[in-house]
Amino acid sequence: MALPTGRQAANSTLKNLFSRYKKLYFITDSTVSDLGNIETVKISLNAGVRMIQLREKNYPKKKLFEEAVSLKKLAQRYGATLIINDHIDIALAADADGVHLGHEDMPLNEARTILGKNRIIGISTHSLKQAIDAQRAGADYIGFGPVFKTITKDAGKPKGINSLKKIKQHIKIPVVAIGGITPETAPDVLGAGADALAVASAILSGDIKENTERLLSVICRIKR
Amino acid sequence: MALPTGRQAANSTLKNLFSRYKKLYFITDSTVSDLGNIETVKISLNAGVRMIQLREKNYPKKKLFEEAVSLKKLAQRYGATLIINDHIDIALAADADGVHLGHEDMPLNEARTILGKNRIIGISTHSLKQAIDAQRAGADYIGFGPVFKTITKDAGKPKGINSLKKIKQHIKIPVVAIGGITPETAPDVLGAGADALAVASAILSGDIKENTERLLSVICRIKR
Repeated sequence: MALPTGRQAANSTLKNLFSRYKKLYFITDSTVSDLGNIETVKISLNAGVRMIQLREKNYPKKKLFEEAVSLKKLAQRYGATLIINDHIDIALAADADGVHLGHEDMPLNEARTILGKNRIIGISTHSLKQAIDAQRAGADYIGFGPVFKTITKDAGKPKGINSLKKIKQHIKIPVVAIGGITPETAPDVLGAGADALAVASAILSGDIKENTERLLSVICRIKR
Repeated sequence: MALPTGRQAANSTLKNLFSRYKKLYFITDSTVSDLGNIETVKISLNAGVRMIQLREKNYPKKKLFEEAVSLKKLAQRYGATLIINDHIDIALAADADGVHLGHEDMPLNEARTILGKNRIIGISTHSLKQAIDAQRAGADYIGFGPVFKTITKDAGKPKGINSLKKIKQHIKIPVVAIGGITPETAPDVLGAGADALAVASAILSGDIKENTERLLSVICRIKR
């Protein structure tokens, strides 16, 4: 299938942030696969992923910066979007498309000031209130979850499909569902209105190419 | 004694980076004192410190940002310089005077690009080669050490006074000596040409006010 090329996501309107090929949002996790982030991202890009988040909680900054630079080159080649978890300085230095921030990270206002208007800021949320706050504060998208039980991250009690539906009723910016999403659960999550599916272990555990293709085929079947 | 006021350090020339009252460079460490960084910095400023580095390896970014903002206000009130360890985004968001980077942090060139010319960049060095490299790459000052054995940080084998002398013969930018510096060893370190003395536990272990005043009195006696 023909895939879009060129940096598309971080345009000023961000309208196509989760266009068809970006509905599968791959979050790296070097603790799940032995291949290393560069290699796992390479395989996932080849298999069709176009939305990448570099998430490494325990890397020294130099290592994180070097990986971010490598991933940026890779992402550019595939017309994919690269988001950096937590570290705004790394996103700036590696010219990534944006950052993803949690509730222990720098507040959104300050992040926006130093990151500028043309980069993406995504915010983790775990309740309707947090989602509304993030939207009001100017987030470009929110992550919401964990929808189901997840092994990748200690993320609290699962919120379930109905909470996701409720979020979608009140939130205008894109909602990325996260937490325990698999090819089996993906249809329900997309049915609840999720604009994208964020996964780590669903891609990384086992055959990365097969996992990616299977997830993408589910997404393409449901979101025509 | 009359102390200088106003933000002096981060001027464009940085000529007075380690002026008389900034020769004592206090590095925070919340694991050494129970008082918390805001309180320990307050006491040290009251006792005469004018050079502060916020160094916390294990803080979430939000907490680090909030402390940086508080310390910036405090520093400004005393005409002190505030340096942030590692995190360029925190330095930018809190409008600190600069950053201090180690060898696992972002490379100096990239740090300079996102930090700009008017903020201070200090680099940790442990050899003459590293010192020369840091100077060539545009560091505003270098840290050199550990001069003596230190408990605060696992920093490798002590380099000794003679290595510090050698560094001073080859390096034109200010050299901040670090590692096991006490009122007893300070005269030798200053005698070897150190432009400033960086300490954490020498201020934090015990009575912060007394420790600071004692260190400052040694510095003022030697560096008239």
